Amino acid sequence: MTMFKFIAAAGVLATGLTITGTALAQDKIYTIGVSVPTADHGWTGGVDFFAQQAVDRLSKTYPNLKFVLQTAPDSTKQAADLEDMVTTRNIDALVILPGDPDAMTASIKKVKDAGKWVTVVDRQLSQSGIEDLYVAGDNPGLGAVTADYFKANLKPGSKIVVLRGLPIPIDKQRFDAFMAGIDGSGIEVLDNQFANWNRDDGYKVMQDFLTKYDHIDAVWCQDDDILVGVLKALKEAGRQDEMWAVGGAGMNQIIKMVEAGSTQVPVDVSYNPAMVGLAIETTALKYVAGLQINGQYIVDSTLITQGNAKDFDYAGTPF
Amino acid sequence: MTMFKFIAAAGVLATGLTITGTALAQDKIYTIGVSVPTADHGWTGGVDFFAQQAVDRLSKTYPNLKFVLQTAPDSTKQAADLEDMVTTRNIDALVILPGDPDAMTASIKKVKDAGKWVTVVDRQLSQSGIEDLYVAGDNPGLGAVTADYFKANLKPGSKIVVLRGLPIPIDKQRFDAFMAGIDGSGIEVLDNQFANWNRDDGYKVMQDFLTKYDHIDAVWCQDDDILVGVLKALKEAGRQDEMWAVGGAGMNQIIKMVEAGSTQVPVDVSYNPAMVGLAIETTALKYVAGLQINGQYIVDSTLITQGNAKDFDYAGTPF
Repeated sequence: MTMFKFIAAAGVLATGLTITGTALAQDKIYTIGVSVPTADHGWTGGVDFFAQQAVDRLSKTYPNLKFVLQTAPDSTKQAADLEDMVTTRNIDALVILPGDPDAMTASIKKVKDAGKWVTVVDRQLSQSGIEDLYVAGDNPGLGAVTADYFKANLKPGSKIVVLRGLPIPIDKQRFDAFMAGIDGSGIEVLDNQFANWNRDDGYKVMQDFLTKYDHIDAVWCQDDDILVGVLKALKEAGRQDEMWAVGGAGMNQIIKMVEAGSTQVPVDVSYNPAMVGLAIETTALKYVAGLQINGQYIVDSTLITQGNAKDFDYAGTPF
Repeated sequence: MTMFKFIAAAGVLATGLTITGTALAQDKIYTIGVSVPTADHGWTGGVDFFAQQAVDRLSKTYPNLKFVLQTAPDSTKQAADLEDMVTTRNIDALVILPGDPDAMTASIKKVKDAGKWVTVVDRQLSQSGIEDLYVAGDNPGLGAVTADYFKANLKPGSKIVVLRGLPIPIDKQRFDAFMAGIDGSGIEVLDNQFANWNRDDGYKVMQDFLTKYDHIDAVWCQDDDILVGVLKALKEAGRQDEMWAVGGAGMNQIIKMVEAGSTQVPVDVSYNPAMVGLAIETTALKYVAGLQINGQYIVDSTLITQGNAKDFDYAGTPF
């Protein structure tokens, strides 16, 4: 049992004797491959940051854990990375956030068929039963938690606009849960349009809404990247005091606004890119603690207020 | 950020310099209270074992983590333990497997209301929204995975008996999923009776079934404690070659039978008491890795065969 050997080695630490990395490294070495998309927008920038953090922390805490961390701009590169991890780097486990889960399903299945542990993060594969562990955020929860905030802070008859992501299941889960959550509240949704989870589209869609509607009480834009575009449009139109706006994810510049008590952006709702770090840390527990870890770990979408914003204000994050 | 301070301290380890527990202990100290039932049957014996393992491993790995581990034979003692942890021991977080979740809900809510982190293991409280993290096994999955095995290994027309647990939701989730799983397979369930998740009742119920039914192809008894009683009844009746039997949980004596290739107990299905260790380890990640961990972590019910039994054969476990 690796678990017991490791306890014995770590015991030296607790009693305060001299130890060296070499002494601990005599335990069996395990190699974990980590494959994440190259940052294509703010959130994936956070993913890359937290993946690197987890790899650094675990490498230093457990000298018998080795990591191969690769970022990929597309599925061709991500598939090639996986093949290299299996054939050349001889990984024991893979932790992957697939850039395009449909395109990556076959490649991930090959890793599993080669007898490797597979942890999938965030995006469901197009075939079920491949991964051992699935770590993700709560997309319906993001819509429901946001709806609760809107209901509690808007009177019946209030008018809102919604900027959605892309027409894929994650967006639909968030949107449907939000609409179900405000049902019966008397809040009127003037319009909803896709803003593709990016700033430029958020800016353009919000400009359009501002042209079409002469009074708006609040904006739900589902994502902090979109929110940055929305805030720019509001400022340019001089309508920033007319309405408040809520995004989602936990971008640092938005967290800092919430933390400072912004009335324009009073809250955020987490969809934390740090979930990739949690996936790597949890996978490591299989090797350092000998625990059964297969299953589903769904991280809550948490309402981030001025009171708890400091818990989401990560130093050094690029997102 | 605690995370970064810890990486810096741990970095000393990786470079092989002399360090002592004192050096690491200069980091902020966090205290985690762990409250589990005193072993009243085999499975809770496993819970106590794996809770102690996790506490030992984490204490030795992270000198800035302190633990208060208490076992309680009843809700009165468990509630008193919680009050002591909050008022006297000043815990930062609680990890609790409530012996009686209904009776413990108010006490656990008090811990939450005192501003402490709360991780609940296995048993759902009677009020939702109290705990920050819920770690549990997959009860419907236990029934479904077992049903798949029965379908794959019994011909249409085969006759089976079912020994259930107690008439509580966990039992119903397991039983309903099993029945849905074998639906349409032609397997006939001769009878099902409660055996209260213990050996003596398993023995008595199985004796009754053996008297009533002159041919049985297989037994599903949902739990390895019941299975031990079933095996005793089969042996005494000299009918141990007539049928095979499947329990659940992962008791070591059953795992060893599966590992040895038993035809009478060909497989087991995990409902791993080590989930309490996973709950403690995951809670610790909040403090040692600075990660957002709130949510739901449901550990799979895994089919344990001769091929993977060694992964569930924990050295030194009393269960």
